Amino acid sequence: MNVFSKDYLMTAGPTPLPPQVSQVMAEPILYHRAPAFIEIYERVLTGLKTVFQTESEVLTFAASGTGAMESAVANLVAPGDRVLAVSCGKFGERWAELSEAYGADLHHHQVEWGRRIEPEDLEQALAAAGDVRVVFTTHSETSTGVLNDVAALADIAHRHGALIGIDAVSALGVVDLQTDAWELDVVASGSQKALMCPPGLAFATVSDRAHEAAREARARGARSYYFDWEKTLKGQRKRPADSPFTPAVTLFRALDVALSMIERETLPGVFERHAVLARAAREAVKAMGLELFGPEDENANVVTAVRVPDGVDGTAVPKLMRDRFRVTVAGGQADLKGKIVRVAHCGYYGAFDIISTVAALEMAFRELGAEISLGAGVAAAEQVFLEAGVPTAQPVG
Amino acid sequence: MNVFSKDYLMTAGPTPLPPQVSQVMAEPILYHRAPAFIEIYERVLTGLKTVFQTESEVLTFAASGTGAMESAVANLVAPGDRVLAVSCGKFGERWAELSEAYGADLHHHQVEWGRRIEPEDLEQALAAAGDVRVVFTTHSETSTGVLNDVAALADIAHRHGALIGIDAVSALGVVDLQTDAWELDVVASGSQKALMCPPGLAFATVSDRAHEAAREARARGARSYYFDWEKTLKGQRKRPADSPFTPAVTLFRALDVALSMIERETLPGVFERHAVLARAAREAVKAMGLELFGPEDENANVVTAVRVPDGVDGTAVPKLMRDRFRVTVAGGQADLKGKIVRVAHCGYYGAFDIISTVAALEMAFRELGAEISLGAGVAAAEQVFLEAGVPTAQPVG
Repeated sequence: MNVFSKDYLMTAGPTPLPPQVSQVMAEPILYHRAPAFIEIYERVLTGLKTVFQTESEVLTFAASGTGAMESAVANLVAPGDRVLAVSCGKFGERWAELSEAYGADLHHHQVEWGRRIEPEDLEQALAAAGDVRVVFTTHSETSTGVLNDVAALADIAHRHGALIGIDAVSALGVVDLQTDAWELDVVASGSQKALMCPPGLAFATVSDRAHEAAREARARGARSYYFDWEKTLKGQRKRPADSPFTPAVTLFRALDVALSMIERETLPGVFERHAVLARAAREAVKAMGLELFGPEDENANVVTAVRVPDGVDGTAVPKLMRDRFRVTVAGGQADLKGKIVRVAHCGYYGAFDIISTVAALEMAFRELGAEISLGAGVAAAEQVFLEAGVPTAQPVG
Repeated sequence: MNVFSKDYLMTAGPTPLPPQVSQVMAEPILYHRAPAFIEIYERVLTGLKTVFQTESEVLTFAASGTGAMESAVANLVAPGDRVLAVSCGKFGERWAELSEAYGADLHHHQVEWGRRIEPEDLEQALAAAGDVRVVFTTHSETSTGVLNDVAALADIAHRHGALIGIDAVSALGVVDLQTDAWELDVVASGSQKALMCPPGLAFATVSDRAHEAAREARARGARSYYFDWEKTLKGQRKRPADSPFTPAVTLFRALDVALSMIERETLPGVFERHAVLARAAREAVKAMGLELFGPEDENANVVTAVRVPDGVDGTAVPKLMRDRFRVTVAGGQADLKGKIVRVAHCGYYGAFDIISTVAALEMAFRELGAEISLGAGVAAAEQVFLEAGVPTAQPVG
């Protein structure tokens, strides 16, 4: 063991698990039809409604978050249906790929990476595409760090007679996301980000309008089985609640514990904590003399993306941080490879996770030849935490 | 705590986890692109080949076992393709439901529940259906306990120019299953049965012929994304190995430990242990004066199905066993509801799990009014274990 022998995971999924979440998975496994599991299952289904801010059933699948996105496309899109995907990064492109895979008449509007999707972007794209049945877009784009105003986008989609499906895999539990109030037809998410659980559970909320559209799409030839909404809805609404396929029971136990932590912290408390963590990270980056990628006021508080300065090998930063300091952060993806470093702070994170990561960033950039005053970033983060006061001082667990 | 306060899980998935499998899930979570996870991931991918007895890549999905079955249908079946599902129980019907959901020209041959599918059944069904592209059937039918001779069925399917896809969710790791030697085109399975892991990982082997057929099916309009074989194959074959979507990292860690246990026990050892456990369960049932459901020599060693004698309320048996003795077994499904009780012994089971369950069965049937001599079943099981000798005496862990 040396001074850099402890691991710090600062990636946007998998994210670190609270010890009480980890430990519950080591308990004896439960039969999915036993009363002991059904109690947990029903409690989780109720807890998810709180987190998604919806009265609708939150449908659950044993899958990665992409499975929930696929459920939206499989249930809503029949071959030849006109679909508009509006993306501003790598994860937004997944909607386009999924729609194509399902035979949609796909229109894909791509906004420059690092920018958010403005209401005008959607208006123009809808006008250009003509009669669109469903708009698919992203709440927090994890590849660039930006947050889209999905309430405004939903409003526009609806005015054009289209449904809207949202990828909220990284946004859920980080920033406010009002499924019902904003009339979001589908919100897809997963267990492995701000919900502080391992990957393997996918979630989809479905509005009444979307359920109706799914029935119509089925009549036009849309197809689904494993990700079928009706099948899952029917099972979850039964009492005792049931699942059409064997549920991932250990992950439900983990989620049960994680949701009770979120309930204690309260949703506003969770959002405020993430806001303070993200602000500290951004202030630290600026104090180090580095540049943020993307406009600061458009950031989703999920990841802080740092532009790699000229003269520094961008791909070397995450590698050095991991291999030397054992702090795992992500680099840029696709076109952004080597150009940015992404520090994630969605989930079970506190002030000292940011402090440690900023310190590691300072040391890594210094080692790679950037002119960095050691401690400058950390000082800025400390200042943010001191000013933030109570919310960050409350226990997370 | 009373004398019946300890829980015994005797169901065919979820099955009990070895303590070392449970515990590894409580370790700090790993980033899926970190070297520490990739090492586990690559080792698991290799280990799965051994268990499936194949040189082909075993494709893995974050999903229930049904997800692997869906991958077969989604990749191989274009709308209008003629498909033959041959079933002999509730799980076999899933292939028919999946094929219909994907728009196949489905022919479904149903063999009486409790019987196995004979080669003649398949010959006749193929002759009746005409040109079939794919035959889907079941290795071990968990709802009735029977084992189908999938080597013989594969041979017939191939002679008719059809591919064959096998549901081996409950058979894998219980009975011999030679994917390559028997030329099985697709073998679908899951993590939560004999692989001694929680539910949430699905597996599919794909023969070269099936990969080729999938490319042709895609050209005819077959669609897949989350369960797409090419995408997953490409990722798994990369070095470092990668996954198109976030893998269920905790379940891979669990599977890594479980596969190492299977490797130490050896596959023949695992099969022999299950054979002895199942024989002991069957002899016990007969010694209790009860009847087995389905011919004894057609049993898959996965579950022992007991016919509920006249005068006993069949649905009360599993309920009493669970509520009073805390031994969880399954009843019959669909048409078999109330008619049979199923004791599962696939996975992390040893002699004393059978002894305890037989004792619970004796007490439950006695309480419900059947004429049972207490201890008779247990004595028969003991006799089997004593005669079996070494294989069951080896440590499982």
